[in-house]
Amino acid sequence: MIITLSLADSAIHSALSHNTTMITVNVDLGDRAYPIHIGPGLIDDTACFAPHITGSSIAIVTNTTVEPLYGERLRRALAPLGKKISTVVLPDGESHKQWETLNLIFDHLLLQHADRKTTLIALGGGVVGDMTGFAAACYMRGVPFIQVPTTLLAQVDSSVGGKTGINHPHGKNMIGAFYQPQAVIADTATLRTLPPRELAAGLAEVIKHGLIADAGFFAWIEANIAALNQCDDAAIIHAVRVSCEIKSRVVAADEREGGVRAILNFGHTFGHAIEAGLGYGEWLHGEAVGCGMLMAADLSQRLGLLDAAARERIVRVVAAAHLPLRAPELGEARYIDLMSVDKKAEAGAVKFILLDGVGHARITGVDDAQVRATLAASTQH
Amino acid sequence: MIITLSLADSAIHSALSHNTTMITVNVDLGDRAYPIHIGPGLIDDTACFAPHITGSSIAIVTNTTVEPLYGERLRRALAPLGKKISTVVLPDGESHKQWETLNLIFDHLLLQHADRKTTLIALGGGVVGDMTGFAAACYMRGVPFIQVPTTLLAQVDSSVGGKTGINHPHGKNMIGAFYQPQAVIADTATLRTLPPRELAAGLAEVIKHGLIADAGFFAWIEANIAALNQCDDAAIIHAVRVSCEIKSRVVAADEREGGVRAILNFGHTFGHAIEAGLGYGEWLHGEAVGCGMLMAADLSQRLGLLDAAARERIVRVVAAAHLPLRAPELGEARYIDLMSVDKKAEAGAVKFILLDGVGHARITGVDDAQVRATLAASTQH
Repeated sequence: MIITLSLADSAIHSALSHNTTMITVNVDLGDRAYPIHIGPGLIDDTACFAPHITGSSIAIVTNTTVEPLYGERLRRALAPLGKKISTVVLPDGESHKQWETLNLIFDHLLLQHADRKTTLIALGGGVVGDMTGFAAACYMRGVPFIQVPTTLLAQVDSSVGGKTGINHPHGKNMIGAFYQPQAVIADTATLRTLPPRELAAGLAEVIKHGLIADAGFFAWIEANIAALNQCDDAAIIHAVRVSCEIKSRVVAADEREGGVRAILNFGHTFGHAIEAGLGYGEWLHGEAVGCGMLMAADLSQRLGLLDAAARERIVRVVAAAHLPLRAPELGEARYIDLMSVDKKAEAGAVKFILLDGVGHARITGVDDAQVRATLAASTQH
Repeated sequence: MIITLSLADSAIHSALSHNTTMITVNVDLGDRAYPIHIGPGLIDDTACFAPHITGSSIAIVTNTTVEPLYGERLRRALAPLGKKISTVVLPDGESHKQWETLNLIFDHLLLQHADRKTTLIALGGGVVGDMTGFAAACYMRGVPFIQVPTTLLAQVDSSVGGKTGINHPHGKNMIGAFYQPQAVIADTATLRTLPPRELAAGLAEVIKHGLIADAGFFAWIEANIAALNQCDDAAIIHAVRVSCEIKSRVVAADEREGGVRAILNFGHTFGHAIEAGLGYGEWLHGEAVGCGMLMAADLSQRLGLLDAAARERIVRVVAAAHLPLRAPELGEARYIDLMSVDKKAEAGAVKFILLDGVGHARITGVDDAQVRATLAASTQH
């Protein structure tokens, strides 16, 4: 069995531990295996961090939005470990996911004389996590790091699986590395401070996990979308847990995306084109993926893989999550051009992730005419 | 046995092959194993490249010095493979081993719509090889690459072992990755166009391999230094082969430099300080290492590890290779500060690679007073 699920042994979590309901999902990657701890209040939990930090110093990487909310609490939790702790605060937003910002991390580490055993801690959303992970992969050719995701999107998606990197003006996530963290510590209580748009963006990836791999989970989302929208504790913990289980299982089967892992990109081929076409940061990543999933569903229906009723269910749940339904009008040629640099493309031929019914994904090339029909339909609602 | 040595099977090398004296050293790294082919004229040898290129396109990365010498010949050798071939020409020199230059490679790859199976070929010296390897490690989170080293330093050192990266204003090779090539194709005839300073810089690493691991090879270098200085074919092939064997054996034992691999940095702790202190590019890397080895030998003698006669042999061979003997006067404090950011440092304590007699290295911390004595002695000859 690839994934093992267990309530954490309360003996491990000493008196310092604030909660006894922590859930752990283990990502089984051999000598790169790591645990994802999920629960409210974990950011204050010294014992949760302790086993994963071996060197004598810690560098926290966060951004201007998250630092005032959680920086001091995290430093307080880490203080009993007796390490040298420093913090670097990056500007916030997808538009800063690029070299100049990454270099602020390197500047900081070198000025702090950070060594090969310094642990980087990514405190924030997907952008902070991706950049911190890539900085950890490259600094002195690799130092350890821990993800502390504070957005739903990062908790259910970007902090799981080891994809790290930055954007290039010609393509999203084009420069990066596969690099696994020592641990992911997902404090679900931090999601309560999330703006509604960011919560919705995270729900897009939750919905994606149901659509590509688990029809039962998709049905659960349909039934609980109101509770998720309200950030209900139990609903959120379940959504994060099942999402991490699904993603971990796929990643463990194909760490470097040679094959099946590509199904996690459902909605992303169209979504990346939307993000790049509008300029990174205009739409949130999850918003673009939400709309991209509808486009992929439209394409799946055109190819006879998905029936109208199933597609209707998808549109309804994406709408209920308050995600955009209509694709921006970039022009057909621009969409095609942007999609041709997709990392899944080979020799210029774009591969699409489509749905073979709810809960089943397939990877396939598609006739240009069908793609154009989807583009035309998706920008006209 | 970690390293296997074999004359290439002539059946593999078809009628296209120009030579039958190619030597192959295999680097045994499990699923990242790769061959180093050594011989004159290999750059024209289509059959030598063929098995290592699987995708539909090739991007050659070279610099303004090497492109006019070998660019066209390499493209002619690759043409029969029927791939799309493009070339990106970087500015030449260690001072360009930094992000802006690396980004020229990414710009080129994205404009060419290079995909995940595009093979990068590094045609040039250590700087081109390190940057191309790092670009290959990061582009779309990893594409294949081949090293075609055209300097002695690159053939005996930087193209073997998978260290890739760029410099940061605060430290050399601070940003990088461990990333192995598909193959190294070392055409020893290309060394005939090498300026004398660059040949000497390469000899520094050849001498290093003898000093840290093989007293017999060191004695061979002493006896053949004149032939090496004249770039004699047989002498150079032997020096490249034994250097690659020694380095491969050390790398196979410790790919990510957790322990023994650090002995390859003999002369580099002082050498990196010289390079950074003078500004990258002022001294060649090999020149700084040559001088750094003398400083490390001085320190070894001070600690009673190396006798005066052995140290004299080292000084004589470094002098005979036309390498600088006297360290630049950066000031003691600046040396100490520059060495404290060395990647081998942990929690601020610098580790030194010292000689326990010729042919044997050891890694150790050293009293500051002894280091200061070496610094004082090495800048006053």
